[in-house]
Amino acid sequence: MYAGIDKLVTSTIGKSTNILWHDCPIGQFEQQKLLNQKGCVVWITGLSGSGKSTLACALSRELHSRGHLTYILLILDGDNLRHGLNRDLCFEAKDRAENIRRVGEVAKLFADAGLICIASLISPYRSERSACRKLLHNSAFFEVFFNVSLEVCEARDPKGLYKLARAGKIKAPSDCEIVIQCKAGDCATPKPMADQVVSYLEANEFLRD
Amino acid sequence: MYAGIDKLVTSTIGKSTNILWHDCPIGQFEQQKLLNQKGCVVWITGLSGSGKSTLACALSRELHSRGHLTYILLILDGDNLRHGLNRDLCFEAKDRAENIRRVGEVAKLFADAGLICIASLISPYRSERSACRKLLHNSAFFEVFFNVSLEVCEARDPKGLYKLARAGKIKAPSDCEIVIQCKAGDCATPKPMADQVVSYLEANEFLRD
Repeated sequence: MYAGIDKLVTSTIGKSTNILWHDCPIGQFEQQKLLNQKGCVVWITGLSGSGKSTLACALSRELHSRGHLTYILLILDGDNLRHGLNRDLCFEAKDRAENIRRVGEVAKLFADAGLICIASLISPYRSERSACRKLLHNSAFFEVFFNVSLEVCEARDPKGLYKLARAGKIKAPSDCEIVIQCKAGDCATPKPMADQVVSYLEANEFLRD
Repeated sequence: MYAGIDKLVTSTIGKSTNILWHDCPIGQFEQQKLLNQKGCVVWITGLSGSGKSTLACALSRELHSRGHLTYILLILDGDNLRHGLNRDLCFEAKDRAENIRRVGEVAKLFADAGLICIASLISPYRSERSACRKLLHNSAFFEVFFNVSLEVCEARDPKGLYKLARAGKIKAPSDCEIVIQCKAGDCATPKPMADQVVSYLEANEFLRD
């Protein structure tokens, strides 16, 4: 085991074996202290048109005005995952479930990073929401449900989904900047390696004064 | 279109149609201003045992000591994705490519959130790294390559992978806390809805003074 590795644990999870878990010195506690907040997931659920996205934006705005760091994961209605991470998925039942599973996993990562992650998605099945909830520890997952009647949602119909549904038209909706040289017996220790990258970050204005 | 939605754009991406893109008021610029840094992806690549994880940890530690927010995505050798988001994937060629694609997409989200995302993975193929690089704008993606000889890596072999490889033994590595009531003609505006959630966050100590 080489320098800098604090802990390595072998495990077998899912379809993978020979997996090593890496316990890194900067953990959730330190991240949260830096941000002056606790990472968590706000899971907003409700029908299309119920107001999920509106709340997600307002919440993000409000928290930001108080100096807190948030990130919104918007699903189905306005979406930064369907355009990227989940673009291999369709809207069939199986794929919708996988879509929600991935949102839960990504939300967990954001909470782990110390952010207040706001997930806005229809997620109609309790079993799926429950599975996402279980990913988080210490009550760091809470749902916000929009109790809005179907009639109200259909009257709003901001995306025309209800209209389409009634008309039967919804089918389912090297380059390398940094080289760290290391030959036998001549390898930099962690600090200089890190400094090399920090220098790059500074030179490229990723770190402000 | 109901209040609070600033911009909705219809698009067709990948296998999905009827997708709406939601432009939320708190964007990357505001997040970065709050964090006093620019979101980006540090993509560390190299052979198993080359020192990727060590650098990832040291870099994270250094940046944290300067008050910057980072998040590490560790792949294959020590892994917070294989245990979660990517647990449906095996180590076959096709699944490895999908694994890397997802890491790129998640890293992009973290950069978008304003964090310095450190991705540490073998990612041997230029085409895959290149695809991840293209996801980021404004040179916010840069690779760190560990130029360490196979002999050195095999001599370290912290996870015994080389030994296993030579022996032919590596097969492939509901409940709801908040209810927002809204009936026809009687719906809260965004601010009070947000305040409701903020109050919950405060009461549960997710927001520190």
